[in-house]
Amino acid sequence: MNKSSSKEIIILGAGLVGSLLSIYLARRGYSVHIYERRPDMRKENISAGRSINLALSDRGWRGLKGAGIEEEIRKVAIPMHGRVMHNVKGEITRQPYGEKGQAIYATSRGILNCVLMTEAEKNGVEIHFNERCTGIDLENATAIFNEKKIVAGSIFSADGAFSTARLHLQLNTDRFEYSQNYLNHGYKELIIPAGEGNTFLMEKNALHIWPRGGYMLIALPNLDGSFTCTLFFPFEGKDSFDSIKTKDDCIKLFKRIFPDALPLMPTLAEDFFNNPTGSLVTVKCFPWSFKDKLCLMGDAAHAIVPFYGQGMNCGFEDCTVFDQLLEKYGDDWDTIFSEFQNLRKPDTDAIAELAYMNFIEMRDLVGSQKFLLQKKIEARLHEKYPTKWLPLYSQVTFSDIPYSKALANGRLQEEVMKKIMKLDNIEEKWDSPEVEKMILNHIS
Amino acid sequence: MNKSSSKEIIILGAGLVGSLLSIYLARRGYSVHIYERRPDMRKENISAGRSINLALSDRGWRGLKGAGIEEEIRKVAIPMHGRVMHNVKGEITRQPYGEKGQAIYATSRGILNCVLMTEAEKNGVEIHFNERCTGIDLENATAIFNEKKIVAGSIFSADGAFSTARLHLQLNTDRFEYSQNYLNHGYKELIIPAGEGNTFLMEKNALHIWPRGGYMLIALPNLDGSFTCTLFFPFEGKDSFDSIKTKDDCIKLFKRIFPDALPLMPTLAEDFFNNPTGSLVTVKCFPWSFKDKLCLMGDAAHAIVPFYGQGMNCGFEDCTVFDQLLEKYGDDWDTIFSEFQNLRKPDTDAIAELAYMNFIEMRDLVGSQKFLLQKKIEARLHEKYPTKWLPLYSQVTFSDIPYSKALANGRLQEEVMKKIMKLDNIEEKWDSPEVEKMILNHIS
Repeated sequence: MNKSSSKEIIILGAGLVGSLLSIYLARRGYSVHIYERRPDMRKENISAGRSINLALSDRGWRGLKGAGIEEEIRKVAIPMHGRVMHNVKGEITRQPYGEKGQAIYATSRGILNCVLMTEAEKNGVEIHFNERCTGIDLENATAIFNEKKIVAGSIFSADGAFSTARLHLQLNTDRFEYSQNYLNHGYKELIIPAGEGNTFLMEKNALHIWPRGGYMLIALPNLDGSFTCTLFFPFEGKDSFDSIKTKDDCIKLFKRIFPDALPLMPTLAEDFFNNPTGSLVTVKCFPWSFKDKLCLMGDAAHAIVPFYGQGMNCGFEDCTVFDQLLEKYGDDWDTIFSEFQNLRKPDTDAIAELAYMNFIEMRDLVGSQKFLLQKKIEARLHEKYPTKWLPLYSQVTFSDIPYSKALANGRLQEEVMKKIMKLDNIEEKWDSPEVEKMILNHIS
Repeated sequence: MNKSSSKEIIILGAGLVGSLLSIYLARRGYSVHIYERRPDMRKENISAGRSINLALSDRGWRGLKGAGIEEEIRKVAIPMHGRVMHNVKGEITRQPYGEKGQAIYATSRGILNCVLMTEAEKNGVEIHFNERCTGIDLENATAIFNEKKIVAGSIFSADGAFSTARLHLQLNTDRFEYSQNYLNHGYKELIIPAGEGNTFLMEKNALHIWPRGGYMLIALPNLDGSFTCTLFFPFEGKDSFDSIKTKDDCIKLFKRIFPDALPLMPTLAEDFFNNPTGSLVTVKCFPWSFKDKLCLMGDAAHAIVPFYGQGMNCGFEDCTVFDQLLEKYGDDWDTIFSEFQNLRKPDTDAIAELAYMNFIEMRDLVGSQKFLLQKKIEARLHEKYPTKWLPLYSQVTFSDIPYSKALANGRLQEEVMKKIMKLDNIEEKWDSPEVEKMILNHIS
C-alpha cells in the first residue's frame, strides 16, 4: 500500500465503479483525475443514470471494505432477508435468501455515489464535472474533451454501458469482439410512498416480487419508508408497454394483475406516463485493454441485465481484483491489464448468463409451487451439509466463488434437482432420507 | 416493371451489392444516386476493398440475371468444377462440387464491380465518387457528406462490413442488436503467376486447396493464367503470422507445409511481407431498417467469413428478394423494408453459421480419407435419388433453397451420415445395398 508512483491516471466516469476505483488507486499513491460528463450530483438534483434499485451483496461489500468505506455505507443500507412473493390474489409467500443473518442490502444509487465521490476527494482524487470525453488517442493515453487534450499514464474507462472509450476500440482497433443484445422487456420505475410518519406500508426488510409469468413487478425499501418499484414488462404484445395507451389502461392492468399493489400506489397512472421506459442491454466485448494505455472497467466492459442484482457488485469486484493485481505486479501495468481481462472475462460472461437466467426464474418460476419446493429441498440440504450443497444463489450473492465456477456448480446442481423433482410424490417425500441419499449420491 | 415513381433513392456504396441494387431500382423507374467514398476504380487503379477471390454460384447468377447482366459476366468468369486437394507430399485428390456440368465461377472482384457500375449508369443511375457519408438524419432520410446534406425518399446502406449507416443505428436508436466477431485466423493474398504464354501452371478449372488442419492455402484461377492464392493462417501461435518474422521463415514454412506450391511462387517472400494481413469478421445486427427511411443491404447487414464463397452471392440474393418484394408491394416501402428484414434475417444468420462450419471443414476435414469417403457416399446417393438426397453444399451453392432450410436439412443429413460412417468396415461396404437401405430408412 501507499507505494509512491508518478503515474498520472485518468478515469472516465465518476459513477459507482469509477469512484470506487479512484479510491483504490489514490490509496496506492497514484495521482488520479476523474472526468465526468454530468454535473456534480451532490450540488444539483440530477438523475444518476440507470436507476434500477441497487442491492448490495457480499462482493459489493468486499469492494467497499477494501477501500475503507464499508461502515459509511452500512448506515444507509436496508437489509433484505428474503423475497416476499405476492400472487395475483394478493396472497404472500416468503423465501429467505440464505442462512439466518444473511441479507442483501437495498441502497440508493444516488447516496452511494455521493459517498463514494466524497471519499475519493478525501483521498486526493480530483473530479472534473461537465467534461464529456469526445475521443481517445490510444497510443499516447490521451483523452480528448472537445478542444482540450489530457495526457495520462493510463486511462480507465468506467463510463458505463455506452462507453465512449469502448466505442473507440470498436472503431479504431482490429479484431475487437463486441456485442450488444437487448431483452424484449423494458422497465419503468414506479413508487409506493411511505405511510403516515414514514412507516413502511409493506414488510420492510424484504425484496417484494409480483411474478406473473412473462413479466413482473418488484419493490425495494427506501430509508424514508417508501418503496421504489420497478415494472419489468414486454415492449410489445398483449400485455405490454405498447398496449397501455391511457391512464385507465394502466389502472385496469394493475387491478387485474397486481391487485394488492394498486391501493398502495396513488400516483401510479401519472408515474407510468411521466417516467421513461428503459431498455435492458447485455454488452460483451474483448479485449478490455490496449497495451498499458487503456482499460475498461465495470459496465463499459460487461454490462448485464439487473436480475441477479449483481451489476454493481460485479463492478466493485472488478476493483477488488484489480487492486490484488496491483499488489502482485506493482507498476507492471501491461501485465496487470492483460491479466485483469483474462481473469475477469470468463467470470463476467458467467454473471451475464446468470443474470439472464434469473430473469427467467424471477419472471416465470418464483411463483410456482414446484419451484418453491425445490428451493426448500436445496435450503434443507445446505443446512445439513453446508459444504456439500451451497445453493447457486448463495454462491453468487454470499460468497466470492468466481462467477464462472458458480455457474458451473449451479448447472450441476440443477441437473440433479431436475431428476429429483421428477420423482413420484416428491411433494410428500421431499424431506425423506431416501431423497437425501439420492441427491448426495449424485453430487459425490 | 418500369412502374414510374417520383421516389428519390440514395445508395451508400458502389460496391457489388450497391451497384446491382441500383440497377434493379432504376429498372423500376426510381431515380437512384449512389454515393461512394472511393474514387472511380474504372479510372484509377485502386484496391476494391476485401480482395479474397470471388466465386459466383447460383444465387449470384440469379441476381445478375434479374438485372439483365448475366451474359456480360459469363464472359469473364472461369468455371471451377471441383476442389483439387494438395496434400503435404504434393499429391493431388479431386472432388467434384456437384453433378456433371455444375460449377462455381472464379471472377475478379474488380472486373465484376466495374461492369456493374457501368451497367448501372446505362440504366440512368448517377454514381458520385469520393463522397464519404459522415452522418445520417434518419427521420428525414437525409445523408450527410461533410457540409452537404442530401435528402432522399429512402436510403440504402450497402457500404460494407464497417457500414457508417449501421453505426448510426447502433449509436442513435434504442434496442439495436449488434455483434462483430473475429476469427483467430487472418488471411493474406499471394500469387502463382502464369507460365509462359499465359499458360496455367496448375489445373485451370478447379479451386485448389492445401488443407493442413488448423490452416490452409487456396488458389483460384485468373483470366491471365495466374492464380490468386489466399493463405488462411492463425494470427498467433506456433505456425502463425506472428511466427513468420523473416523471408527465410516464410520460405521454410512453405517448403515444409506447401512443398508443391512453393516452386510456383517466385515472389512469395516479397508478397508475404508487402501484402497486408486481413482479419475475418462476422457481423450480425437487427433491425436492418428504420421505418421507410433506411435499409441495410449486403455486408452492412450481415458480413460473413468467406469459406462458403457465399458473401457476394448472399448479397446478390438480397437484391433478388428485395426486387420480389417491390413487385409484390409496389410503393409500400414501410412494409417492404419490414418484410425484407424478417424474411432475410434467418437466412443470413444461417449462411453465417454455414460459412463458419465450412471453415472448419476446409481447414480440418477436406484432406481426410473418411471425409472423402463420406462425400463419395453422399454423391452416389444423390445420383441415384436426386430428390431424396441433395448434398448440403449443392443446396447452398446450386439451388435457391433458403439458407435456413439448407442448414436444417444439412444438420439432419450429418446426423444420418455420422451413424453410417461409424459402421464397421464402412470402407468396404460403402456402396452396398445394405448401407443404402439404412440411409434411406433414416431420411424417410
